[in-house]
Amino acid sequence: MDEKLPLRSENFSEWYNQVIMRAELADYAPVRGCMVVRPYGWALWENIQATLDARFKATGHENAAFPLFIPMSFLEKEKDHVEGFSPELAVVTIGGGEKLEEPLVVRPTSETIIGHMYAKWIKSYRDLPILINQWANVVRWEMRTRLFLRTLEFYWQEGHTAHATEQEAIEETRRMLDVYTDFAVNEAAIPVIPGRKSESEKFAGAAESYTIEAMMGDTRALQSGTSHNLGQNFAKAFDIQYLDENNQQQFCWTTSWGLSTRFVGAIIMAHGDDQGLVLPPRLAPIQAVIVPIFKNEDERALVLPVVDKVKSELTGIRVKVDDRTEVTPGFKFNDWELRGVPIRIEIGPKDVEKGSVALARRDTPGREGKSFIPQAGLKAAVETMLTAIHMAMLEKARAFRDAHIFEPTDYEEFKQVVQNGWAFSYWCGRSECEAQIKENTKATTRCIPLDQNTAPGKCIHCGEPAREKVYSARAY
Amino acid sequence: MDEKLPLRSENFSEWYNQVIMRAELADYAPVRGCMVVRPYGWALWENIQATLDARFKATGHENAAFPLFIPMSFLEKEKDHVEGFSPELAVVTIGGGEKLEEPLVVRPTSETIIGHMYAKWIKSYRDLPILINQWANVVRWEMRTRLFLRTLEFYWQEGHTAHATEQEAIEETRRMLDVYTDFAVNEAAIPVIPGRKSESEKFAGAAESYTIEAMMGDTRALQSGTSHNLGQNFAKAFDIQYLDENNQQQFCWTTSWGLSTRFVGAIIMAHGDDQGLVLPPRLAPIQAVIVPIFKNEDERALVLPVVDKVKSELTGIRVKVDDRTEVTPGFKFNDWELRGVPIRIEIGPKDVEKGSVALARRDTPGREGKSFIPQAGLKAAVETMLTAIHMAMLEKARAFRDAHIFEPTDYEEFKQVVQNGWAFSYWCGRSECEAQIKENTKATTRCIPLDQNTAPGKCIHCGEPAREKVYSARAY
Repeated sequence: MDEKLPLRSENFSEWYNQVIMRAELADYAPVRGCMVVRPYGWALWENIQATLDARFKATGHENAAFPLFIPMSFLEKEKDHVEGFSPELAVVTIGGGEKLEEPLVVRPTSETIIGHMYAKWIKSYRDLPILINQWANVVRWEMRTRLFLRTLEFYWQEGHTAHATEQEAIEETRRMLDVYTDFAVNEAAIPVIPGRKSESEKFAGAAESYTIEAMMGDTRALQSGTSHNLGQNFAKAFDIQYLDENNQQQFCWTTSWGLSTRFVGAIIMAHGDDQGLVLPPRLAPIQAVIVPIFKNEDERALVLPVVDKVKSELTGIRVKVDDRTEVTPGFKFNDWELRGVPIRIEIGPKDVEKGSVALARRDTPGREGKSFIPQAGLKAAVETMLTAIHMAMLEKARAFRDAHIFEPTDYEEFKQVVQNGWAFSYWCGRSECEAQIKENTKATTRCIPLDQNTAPGKCIHCGEPAREKVYSARAY
Repeated sequence: MDEKLPLRSENFSEWYNQVIMRAELADYAPVRGCMVVRPYGWALWENIQATLDARFKATGHENAAFPLFIPMSFLEKEKDHVEGFSPELAVVTIGGGEKLEEPLVVRPTSETIIGHMYAKWIKSYRDLPILINQWANVVRWEMRTRLFLRTLEFYWQEGHTAHATEQEAIEETRRMLDVYTDFAVNEAAIPVIPGRKSESEKFAGAAESYTIEAMMGDTRALQSGTSHNLGQNFAKAFDIQYLDENNQQQFCWTTSWGLSTRFVGAIIMAHGDDQGLVLPPRLAPIQAVIVPIFKNEDERALVLPVVDKVKSELTGIRVKVDDRTEVTPGFKFNDWELRGVPIRIEIGPKDVEKGSVALARRDTPGREGKSFIPQAGLKAAVETMLTAIHMAMLEKARAFRDAHIFEPTDYEEFKQVVQNGWAFSYWCGRSECEAQIKENTKATTRCIPLDQNTAPGKCIHCGEPAREKVYSARAY
């Protein structure tokens, strides 16, 4: 903790790792590529869970729990699915001291085992739709890992739904994309761009994949949540059928959608600054920290009762009192800045005298972010300030994003802009162009915005006719 | 669903399985010994989680997440621990298509990997105590499995704490035993008996284990939650040391404590009856179900607006309206009785006319449990009734328990009473007696009550001097 944090502008990657370690969000586990999510990081994830879970329930979904282990043969039933996931599997071959007849895969995702159960549960149209979500850990054997962004084991929610008609499945897929967008913007203050994935970037086994894409502080893109229309692919592979109102057997239409602890990485990289984390107020584990300031016993006796009183009045706000005696107030200021607490409340003898407190905004460092507020009515002032911080963070992230999205007019310009930003340009839709762009520039197709009303144009790469514009960027 | 539920009194085991399947609490997974927890069962578990989690946080604990995979070598560091768990391990030997150099164990419990991290995090006495809990899935390769009671994969919380002194660790162990007892009694209406485990029944690697033991409807015992004082066993195995105030290196004292989805089995078996589940009101996913009653369109138009009005007034209570049109009210009554919903609210044309509703208590079947309550003030009446149901269920379970605890005076009587109840009798403390009792009667030492003020006596089995009385019973 003695050495300074690397500058975000100079070494973004090292800044990212050190912020996580120093703020005690997570730590490296003794198993390659796995992480330990420490209490401060887990509390952030719990807040993400709570706000998402409320949205899932409000849209009619229920939670359940499906097994960790999936028979290897299940994965093989959907051709694209097994192709996509088989290089990434962790496999249990021994159970209770004996070699298993059929190896068990540790779930990388649960379409197959849930499909198997849905086939068993669904009999008639009256059983539809089935709208289930689970909060779970999943394992993908990644070679290059980063804390939160890409770990062997990660935590997520995966929604799995089954419907009677294609239209309902499409609506569900889009509804959950909207839920993710709403969550990102209104809880995490991240102005994500929703859209469709290209053929090469879509989920293994999906008919159509949708994504929310976020711009990080180094302008790279992060896929932050996905929603998949699975068509009848899994219904046919797992025989998920229902008897319709005319007594005919029909295959269901299914969807799946997920958001993971990767989103914690998005929050760190979208909002952080040279001092460390800047947490969005609605998700921050601690929304306000009170730092008592005193030089001697007399001042202490004056200050601490006011600290207690102020804390007890801030009901409904997540407040922590930093009552450590072994460190100075200055150390505490830096510490809570590093940890990204939105508001710092300072209470010293002068504040007691004046009946006020000093508030410091994390998102606005220095004098500008500091104000003196009467103790009476402090709760309303803090609530107002939390909202103001949310809005300011969203605005700042949006301005940064928009300043780094370019509309190149030729491929030379395209190659330039994606070095430090996103390109929004026409694409003919051919995988060949996409692959060559990736090879030339490392930029991938991030998403194709929905409901485009653009006039036809020409592909930025090959010049052939193109109907849609796409976002291209280097990505995590 | 057409055939009748087996009678609980005639075939307890089959009754148990069928209640779970018919009430849709859980289902069998396609992997041997694993279960799918369905939405109704998971909602019950979520309520258990919420009430426990609040108690953990109120006693100063934080949540975190440690990895699913543990290097095989970690387990081997604590001799008793590896001996206890090695027959039950699921082992990952292949990752990303390649054979792993060191096999990874799917966690059966996390003392080892958490111990490893604590050794890294703890430097000085200022870092203590560490009070962390995690909600997780764990895997034990059981041969004979039962839904909820014993499954290969199950869900639980595991608390892991580290302390500077033995006394603090003992206090923590006992505090969490008290938390479990309080939860069982005041949320689940199960009058558990807390106590110490015998040497042969304690956790592999613990200095001392404590348990809450519950009596099921067939008088068998179910270990429903455990709290372990681990002494310095894991601290020494994993080198968890701290620098004390005198600058001396000291080993920590650690504890662990857990409660699992097994508790759902306890709720089913402690309270259920021939009609199915009887859920304790404070944990029930649905606390009151409204069944509208009408014979024709006119009555329907009369009843439904009142149903909506009543539902909207029952704020803070978990209410469901059963608006299915394809089944009769009688079918619905049976269905919700099977699912154990504490209160049924019937609203028909006569109720609309009188401005009242009919309330039926699940715990008191038939006419006795039925009352007619004015719609005005219904919320208070329902809340009062939920409390009354909780108290009545607890009282009923306590009376049943006490009627089936016997204090045999000789071994012949002991052998008899444990056929259909628990024995509370002196034990000399020798494992030989315990083993012989088990062989003769299938009864095991369930727990040794704390703080006994009993006069010394003679062992029920060997007649040798004994200082303590123990509960013995056949157990799940």
